[in-house]
Amino acid sequence: MKQKKNVTFNDIANYTHFSKTTISRYFNNPDSLTLENQEIIAKALVDLDYKENKVARILANGKTEFIGVIIPNLFLHYYSEMLNQILSTYESFGYKFLVFIGNGQEETERRYIQELLAYKIEGLIILSHTIPSKELSELGIPIVTIEREDKYVCSVNTDNYMGGYQATGLLAEHNCEVIIHINYINSPANPDVPAYGRVQGFLDFCTEHQIKHELILKEMGNTYESIRHHLSDILDEITGKYPNLKKGLFISNDTQANVLVNLLIRKYGKLPEDFLLVGFDNSPISEEAVIPISTVGQQIDKLSYEAVKLLVEQMNERKKRKPMLLKEPIHKVITPVLLRKETTEKELGTGFF
Amino acid sequence: MKQKKNVTFNDIANYTHFSKTTISRYFNNPDSLTLENQEIIAKALVDLDYKENKVARILANGKTEFIGVIIPNLFLHYYSEMLNQILSTYESFGYKFLVFIGNGQEETERRYIQELLAYKIEGLIILSHTIPSKELSELGIPIVTIEREDKYVCSVNTDNYMGGYQATGLLAEHNCEVIIHINYINSPANPDVPAYGRVQGFLDFCTEHQIKHELILKEMGNTYESIRHHLSDILDEITGKYPNLKKGLFISNDTQANVLVNLLIRKYGKLPEDFLLVGFDNSPISEEAVIPISTVGQQIDKLSYEAVKLLVEQMNERKKRKPMLLKEPIHKVITPVLLRKETTEKELGTGFF
Repeated sequence: MKQKKNVTFNDIANYTHFSKTTISRYFNNPDSLTLENQEIIAKALVDLDYKENKVARILANGKTEFIGVIIPNLFLHYYSEMLNQILSTYESFGYKFLVFIGNGQEETERRYIQELLAYKIEGLIILSHTIPSKELSELGIPIVTIEREDKYVCSVNTDNYMGGYQATGLLAEHNCEVIIHINYINSPANPDVPAYGRVQGFLDFCTEHQIKHELILKEMGNTYESIRHHLSDILDEITGKYPNLKKGLFISNDTQANVLVNLLIRKYGKLPEDFLLVGFDNSPISEEAVIPISTVGQQIDKLSYEAVKLLVEQMNERKKRKPMLLKEPIHKVITPVLLRKETTEKELGTGFF
Repeated sequence: MKQKKNVTFNDIANYTHFSKTTISRYFNNPDSLTLENQEIIAKALVDLDYKENKVARILANGKTEFIGVIIPNLFLHYYSEMLNQILSTYESFGYKFLVFIGNGQEETERRYIQELLAYKIEGLIILSHTIPSKELSELGIPIVTIEREDKYVCSVNTDNYMGGYQATGLLAEHNCEVIIHINYINSPANPDVPAYGRVQGFLDFCTEHQIKHELILKEMGNTYESIRHHLSDILDEITGKYPNLKKGLFISNDTQANVLVNLLIRKYGKLPEDFLLVGFDNSPISEEAVIPISTVGQQIDKLSYEAVKLLVEQMNERKKRKPMLLKEPIHKVITPVLLRKETTEKELGTGFF
C-alpha cells in the first residue's frame, strides 16, 4: 500500500493557472466563482487525484459539519428506524453524525455530551429521556429533541393526542361496548412527556362519545417474560370483568399488543369475536404477528427530517455575522397515521382462520 | 446563552506556573509527567472550566480517533444490534464512530467511503456486501469486515458451518424423518459468502448421519407479502411430498421461520405434531412469535468487540515508528449458540396449546 503524496492548493493553482486564493474560494465559498471556473477546478481535482482533508478545512473555517446524537438504545425498532432516518438526512443536508447509545444512564450521557462538545459538534439531537431539558438548554449549542420532555429546548414530536384519539375512534367505529387503554407509563402525573398525549386522546374521545372505558396504567418491566406475565393477568381481569361486552383494547405499543394477540390465540386457537385490538408505533412486529395488528404509525421519516432541518436552521443562523438566537424554543408536531389491519378488520384475513 | 472566552494553554500555564510545553505534554503524552503534576493540571482545568478542543489536538498529532462504519440497513435487527454493540465499544477503546447506511447502493457507498477518508478516519468497519474486498484492500487504511465476502481484508465471522450443523443436529435428535433446509440465497455457487457455510453444515450432517434431506434455495424478495407468498407455496409442496413423515425444517433466518409458524398456526390452530422448526439469528421475533422459535444465535456482542479490537490493533501498529503491516488478512471466527425453544421442545409450552 503506497502512500501518495498529498496534492496541495499550490499544485491545483499551478495546474489550473488560477491563484491560490481562487482555489481556496472554490472550497470555502464556491458560489463566488463562475460556474465555468468551478468546473475547471473540479476537473483538475479529478486529474490530480486530490484527496480532500476536511480536518484541515475545519481548522480554517471552524465548521465541523458534525451533529451529535444521543439515543437510548437500538433494540427497539422505533429507535433504530429513527437513527436510520436521521443518518439518511446526510443526502439532504451533508451533516455527519457522531452517535452515542445512552442506555438510560444519566451520568454516562453527560460524559458523552462532553466528548461530543470536545469534537466541536455544531448541534445535538437528543432522543434519550434522562437529562432535563433545562440542563440541555444551557449547553450553549443548538439542540433538538424528539419525543421526550422538551420544555426548554426545540423539539419535534408526534401528535400523540391525535394518535390516541384515532385509535380509540377506530375501536368505537367497530361498535366496541367497552374500550380499555393499556399503557406502560406508571403514572399519568407527568404531562410533560409527549407520549402522555395518547392517554389524554383516549380519555377525551370516550368522554365526548359517552363510551364505557377503563384506563390501565402498569409498569411492566423490560423482559418479554415480565411483560407476558403482567398482560396475562390483565387479560384474565378484563375477561372476567366484561364477559358479555365487545371489548376494544388500545395498547400503547405494538410489542405489548403482540403479546396480547399471542395470549388470545394460544388460549382460543383464533382471535375471539369479542376482542378488537389497536397498537401504536407501526413496528415490524405489527406486520409479523400471527394476526397483523392495527396500529397508529409515527411518521419516523418526517420526525427525523424535521428534527435535522430545525437543527440545521439554527446552526446556519449562528454562522451569520449577527445571529438572531431564538427567544423561545420551537416545538413542531407531526401527524400520526392510522393503519387498519386484521385485529380490527377481520375481513382482511386470508381465510385461514 | 453567553459565549465563554476559550481557556488557552497560556491561561493554564499562568494558573499552574508550569511552562506551556508542560501543559502541551499533559495533553499529548501525560505519562511523561509525574502523577502529582498531572493532578495539579487536572485540577486547574476544572477551576478554569477548560473545554478541550479535540479538533485542534487532531491537527497536532494526526489522530482523529474516528472509525468509519458502513452498514447495509438498520431495519433488520441483526444490523441494528450489531451497530449497538459496535458503538458500545467506545467504553473499551475510546474510538468514535462515523456511521453511514449503504442501503445496498454500491456507488453511494463509494461516495461515503470518500467522505470518511476526507475526515481522516483511522480505520473502517464494513458490514455491507456491495464493494469487493479486493477494492477495499486498496484503500490504504485498516479495514475489518463482518459476515461478508472477505478474501482480501481482515474479518470476523460467525462459524456458520457449525451453526448449520447444530441446527440440523437438533432436528435429528428429535427423530425427524426428513430434514429440509430453506435458504434465501439464490445459489450455492458462491462459497465466499460466510452464510453459505450454513448450507454446507446442513448437507454434511445429513450425509454423515444418512438422513433423508432436501435443500430448497429460493430468492424471496424483501417484503413480508412476497416472503409469505413463497413460503406458503413451499409449505404446500413439503406437506404434499412428505405426508407421513416427521418433518424438520431448518430455515436460514428467524423472520422466515416466523412466517412459517404463522402459516401453520393459521391453518391448524396449533403447531402440528409432525412439524419441527429451527431458525437462525436469535432475532427478537424468535421470542415474540406466537410459538417461540428454536434458533441459532450469533454472538453479536463478541463479533462486534472482536472486529473493533482487530481494527484497533492494526491502527495502533500504524502509529509505531516502524509499523509491521499484515502480509495476509486475519480471519476470526466466533462460535454460534443453539437456543432450544418451543418449536422443537414442545414441553416448554405454557400449556395453552
